[in-house]
Amino acid sequence: MLRVSTRTKLLLSTLLAVSLAPALTAHAVEGMFTPDQLPEIAKDLRKKGLKLDTRDLADLTGFPMGAVVSLGGCTASFVSPQGLVVTNHHCAYGSIQYNSTEEQNYLEEGFLAANFEAELPAAPGSRVYVTVDLDDVTSDVTGGLDGSLSGEERFAAIDSARKAIVAECETDEGHRCRVASFYGGLQYKLIKQLEIKDVRLAYAPAGPIGKYGGDIDNWMWPRHTGDFAFYRAYVSPDGKSADYSEDNIPFEPDHHLKVSGAGLDDGDFVMVAGYPGSTSRYARLAQVENTFDWSYPTWQGLLDNWIAAIEGASEPGSDARIKYQSRLASLNNFNKNLGGQIEGARRVGLVDRRAEREAALNAWIAKEAPDAGYAEAIAALDALSEESATAARSSYWYNNATRPQLLGTAQRLYRLSHERMKPDAEREGGYQERDMTRMTQGMTAMDRRYDPAVDKAEWMVFLNGYMAQPAAERVAALDSALGLRDGMSDAEMSALLDRYYADTSLDDLDTRLGLMDATPDALEASNDPFMRLAVALYDYERAMEAASKDRSGRRASLQPKYMEAIIAWQKDQGFTAYPDANSTLRVTYGTVMGGSPKDGMRYDPFTTLQGITEKDTGDDPFNSPQKQLDLIDAEEYGAYELDSIDSVPVNFLTDLDSTGGNSGSATLNAKGELVGLLFDGTIESVNSDWDFDPRTTRSIHVDSRYMLWVMDKVDNADHLLDEMDVVNARGRSMR
Amino acid sequence: MLRVSTRTKLLLSTLLAVSLAPALTAHAVEGMFTPDQLPEIAKDLRKKGLKLDTRDLADLTGFPMGAVVSLGGCTASFVSPQGLVVTNHHCAYGSIQYNSTEEQNYLEEGFLAANFEAELPAAPGSRVYVTVDLDDVTSDVTGGLDGSLSGEERFAAIDSARKAIVAECETDEGHRCRVASFYGGLQYKLIKQLEIKDVRLAYAPAGPIGKYGGDIDNWMWPRHTGDFAFYRAYVSPDGKSADYSEDNIPFEPDHHLKVSGAGLDDGDFVMVAGYPGSTSRYARLAQVENTFDWSYPTWQGLLDNWIAAIEGASEPGSDARIKYQSRLASLNNFNKNLGGQIEGARRVGLVDRRAEREAALNAWIAKEAPDAGYAEAIAALDALSEESATAARSSYWYNNATRPQLLGTAQRLYRLSHERMKPDAEREGGYQERDMTRMTQGMTAMDRRYDPAVDKAEWMVFLNGYMAQPAAERVAALDSALGLRDGMSDAEMSALLDRYYADTSLDDLDTRLGLMDATPDALEASNDPFMRLAVALYDYERAMEAASKDRSGRRASLQPKYMEAIIAWQKDQGFTAYPDANSTLRVTYGTVMGGSPKDGMRYDPFTTLQGITEKDTGDDPFNSPQKQLDLIDAEEYGAYELDSIDSVPVNFLTDLDSTGGNSGSATLNAKGELVGLLFDGTIESVNSDWDFDPRTTRSIHVDSRYMLWVMDKVDNADHLLDEMDVVNARGRSMR
Repeated sequence: MLRVSTRTKLLLSTLLAVSLAPALTAHAVEGMFTPDQLPEIAKDLRKKGLKLDTRDLADLTGFPMGAVVSLGGCTASFVSPQGLVVTNHHCAYGSIQYNSTEEQNYLEEGFLAANFEAELPAAPGSRVYVTVDLDDVTSDVTGGLDGSLSGEERFAAIDSARKAIVAECETDEGHRCRVASFYGGLQYKLIKQLEIKDVRLAYAPAGPIGKYGGDIDNWMWPRHTGDFAFYRAYVSPDGKSADYSEDNIPFEPDHHLKVSGAGLDDGDFVMVAGYPGSTSRYARLAQVENTFDWSYPTWQGLLDNWIAAIEGASEPGSDARIKYQSRLASLNNFNKNLGGQIEGARRVGLVDRRAEREAALNAWIAKEAPDAGYAEAIAALDALSEESATAARSSYWYNNATRPQLLGTAQRLYRLSHERMKPDAEREGGYQERDMTRMTQGMTAMDRRYDPAVDKAEWMVFLNGYMAQPAAERVAALDSALGLRDGMSDAEMSALLDRYYADTSLDDLDTRLGLMDATPDALEASNDPFMRLAVALYDYERAMEAASKDRSGRRASLQPKYMEAIIAWQKDQGFTAYPDANSTLRVTYGTVMGGSPKDGMRYDPFTTLQGITEKDTGDDPFNSPQKQLDLIDAEEYGAYELDSIDSVPVNFLTDLDSTGGNSGSATLNAKGELVGLLFDGTIESVNSDWDFDPRTTRSIHVDSRYMLWVMDKVDNADHLLDEMDVVNARGRSMR
Repeated sequence: MLRVSTRTKLLLSTLLAVSLAPALTAHAVEGMFTPDQLPEIAKDLRKKGLKLDTRDLADLTGFPMGAVVSLGGCTASFVSPQGLVVTNHHCAYGSIQYNSTEEQNYLEEGFLAANFEAELPAAPGSRVYVTVDLDDVTSDVTGGLDGSLSGEERFAAIDSARKAIVAECETDEGHRCRVASFYGGLQYKLIKQLEIKDVRLAYAPAGPIGKYGGDIDNWMWPRHTGDFAFYRAYVSPDGKSADYSEDNIPFEPDHHLKVSGAGLDDGDFVMVAGYPGSTSRYARLAQVENTFDWSYPTWQGLLDNWIAAIEGASEPGSDARIKYQSRLASLNNFNKNLGGQIEGARRVGLVDRRAEREAALNAWIAKEAPDAGYAEAIAALDALSEESATAARSSYWYNNATRPQLLGTAQRLYRLSHERMKPDAEREGGYQERDMTRMTQGMTAMDRRYDPAVDKAEWMVFLNGYMAQPAAERVAALDSALGLRDGMSDAEMSALLDRYYADTSLDDLDTRLGLMDATPDALEASNDPFMRLAVALYDYERAMEAASKDRSGRRASLQPKYMEAIIAWQKDQGFTAYPDANSTLRVTYGTVMGGSPKDGMRYDPFTTLQGITEKDTGDDPFNSPQKQLDLIDAEEYGAYELDSIDSVPVNFLTDLDSTGGNSGSATLNAKGELVGLLFDGTIESVNSDWDFDPRTTRSIHVDSRYMLWVMDKVDNADHLLDEMDVVNARGRSMR
């Protein structure tokens, strides 16, 4: 799935501690363009089939981009003037689960609010972010920086400038602001979004439709997943952002998308607007090699053991297993993704291709821009990339060894006690007042995903990996605080950890919440073993953090120069270089098409209703509702049939460029009508985060005709269909 | 793989203890026809593209059928006037392995004899069977049978008649004869074959070509396996069958196939001549239900435990693991096949389809042939099918509980001691003088595949399954002889079994071979625990065998009538009913074509050399020789390129009808030239043994152009290429 989940983020941010560096020749349909870049590539867009004016597309608050919103980790779109929002079922999953009970299981049976009043509050923390403004603030962030700053000083200066800009922006209540870095710090943009906090669940099809195929079909084609659901955004009666209240009213967006009942056919133009999370298209060779030769294989080994430990410590169906179901799914998802990335890197020859690209760039610089300072910056950047890779390797096992949930909690609480002594603007990101709601939610949510026996089993795996390293790689602070010794037996280690779980009180929610106000002194006096460990590791961690910030600061002076070289090089060849994904709004475009994932095999561009019946075993995750199977059997296609496949299309493939975070993205036809939702990429595509391979990269979408067919025929959601603008091929209303 | 291996045979014969019953509407290209049936379907064959006269194809000793030979479990073909035989690499695997040492590993590096003298003896027991005569002997077998015979009497009468015919036939020294039953005993044919005993290995490509993809790609498409190898048949200087001798000379077959260097393209006519092992196309509903609702799922559960037990008792790379590698591969292969069969049965709705077919046949009988006695025979057959299914279920765990190798050995030896007291003609099949060479080979081969710790671990699994049944299902003779009690702990069971392995001497080859001459008295006096167990179970097993023979005898009076009804019914609809596969020569025909194994996905008809490079990881089983990769990279296609794919075709798909035993079968074009070798079917095809599904059934072939390309470019096997008739599209020699 292409959601940026918290868990995946955590893993990936650890994994890619070498900050996400970004060089690329623009091929075929490669490119996650910022909307303002679209006029530059207008000619190609028109040639491919776009009927809209690219200048309109460049306006983030106009039509159609103004209808595209972020849910934080997922993308969504307004599809009615009354705040109806469509996204993926897997993006609304938490809210459906939150409202489900054993008696009223919406995850299983689906949920359809008969009217506005019947809509249910989404899970705590659910948000709809509507972009209201965008400004280039590069000069405010980096304009005054002196070339002589140390890495650490540069980091601090940039960090402080970004925080100040955000703080100023957020004085407009009800808004959430962010200074996003583009091209590795060559450009900074302030994005201001209306933060809608009252989000309600309007409709979700039954789980066996919305999650059809489950984890088995995740990243796979052929696919038959009805991965869509509907939220509604609510605001206060005066139209402002507000917490949930019965008095709130549906939000009236400036723009919403029409929903196409006519859809697409093989070869049609398609574009997607969404919030892709992160890519590494411009990563230097040292980082690529470190990732694929060391980091990913090491992760695979750890994940196998980690998954086995969770499964071993929790019986299927037990309370403990239920708490870890979501983590297990994430770890398995991550493992499958890693396998796809490693296989993809082998297939395209990623390391060799990256070396060739760097050589080509160097040759161009030597010929066309020998005096621009590019070569020097790149040489320094490469040295820094090596240094970062080494740092990542040496901190890998330490980071894992300190992963237990209560230790993480203790570390956040102790850090908070320190940060709270500073003025808000000077605090570390994540510890400012604006972050306190989220932190409280995190402290609360832990109860639903923590089991001491499982946590300990995980810790044993991490510590075994940590202890298996050469002694020189170990961290003295951790060895001494935990009492780790060479040659410890598993039994000794186990006994040692048992004391942590027996003596802690951090497993109590009130304790955790109470400690959010504690002073450093109070926490230093604590007898809680996890807190004592957090205190003992604090200085070491700050030193690591300072070193990391110093590398980031130095990178901030080098990466922009490198990206400048890339942009100039690409432009010289007639291409528009786009920035790596950074969870900001991007547009990618291409064509509906099947593909050849491997020699001797082909993917068709569409799957059909009949494919659902074909896969259906009656057992989860292939357990379609009987009503749906009967409708398919009766060929009750309504107005939603695609002649070329003699059926209603369920999912389709395109060659466009997407990644995690694009989940829920509006898939638009040449006229900007919603023809589907992007929800996944094929397993052959996942390596495209590093090196876009036009031959095998395919995004997977749920077809609007299937969405409408399910709403119309299976779930009789007529009032929602009437609320939306459902249009035929000539743009006329179908209702 | 489509070889009928000894192991698979054993499992399947236990599994399908309900003897292989055979009803079907002939669809598309369904049908494994006996060559004499081909004139009946000549019109369709000509329409599909055949250029040969079907009357010639019907002549088993003429061209081209006379060139097709059996290896016992696999099929092969003569491809030169000097006895050169081509078959699958996996069919010659045992011989390549037999000649390999650590220093000279032909499995890894391949083997090419520079001349006749350098050819190596094939593995002991290797045979080439050349059909020299075929006679309908139905009246000799069943002509004189009285309708009043009991099942047991009928069985004995048929058995005795078949043995007498075989004995008479085999008075012609150097020949092997068999009376094969067609249409469940409606027809019997005597097949007389020259038994060539001096078989030598002439050429095998490197394992990483011949077994490319290994077990991972087994049953899978896309495929890139160079599954071919060459034997040569030798006879005595006077042209008779003879054991290996330096004086022997290459056999000169009456016919050999030309090898096409031009090959086929998508949509071309293709036919295959080979020895398919067994199918169940005419199985009655009771058997189908018992198989898919009970037998296969039970097997899957047992196989998982069985495989885990072997792996748990033998470290990877250990001597014990090496001994069980082949069994593990067979069990995994069987398990994968079962999964495919169960999935296929679900996909086509096998049980419902069989019920519908039986209803349609009943309706036809009621209308068209109410007085032919069909309905009565079918009703009796169905009662018998239920009875057989019940017997199969109740003997399942007993059969497994008596599977340990030394117990099986003791049982065979004790049985032999009894059988040897009878005149040869009256002995049970497998215990006649003609069987003694094979039995000795079996006793000898055991040393290479037996390890006491693994054998015991397997026995524990079997006994746990046996003990988990309701007590009423258990066999008193076994309980009492082994000392099994309700509620025994694993430790008690383990201690009990330990004594067997500690006290036996049957693990000694000389002991086993010496006991082949022992009398019943001598064996009954033995203190060997396995022999004592064999003696204790003897009477029970004979009673079971008698009951089974009685059911077979009763079936022999019913099944022919049922098949008569099927043939008449099919003929009435314009179709030719073919008999179920029975390891006799069959011809199947169809078209080169890709396919849609599932909604949204397609198989291309050909794979290419580039697909080898694409799959290659450098690690087994995807570790092509570098020379091959370099030749591919250089696009050195020689004369073997297929324009429509811009490469040399490696493997291809056809829609024709094949099953286990077809491995190595000659794939022929419209002119009867060899265009490839059949070596596998796709996983979506395996259920076709029960119900041919024309939409998804595809056979997999290695293309003759790839074989020739490997011989020419990779291995420089010029002398073999010169020896064969390699012809171009116009039939002219390419050498």
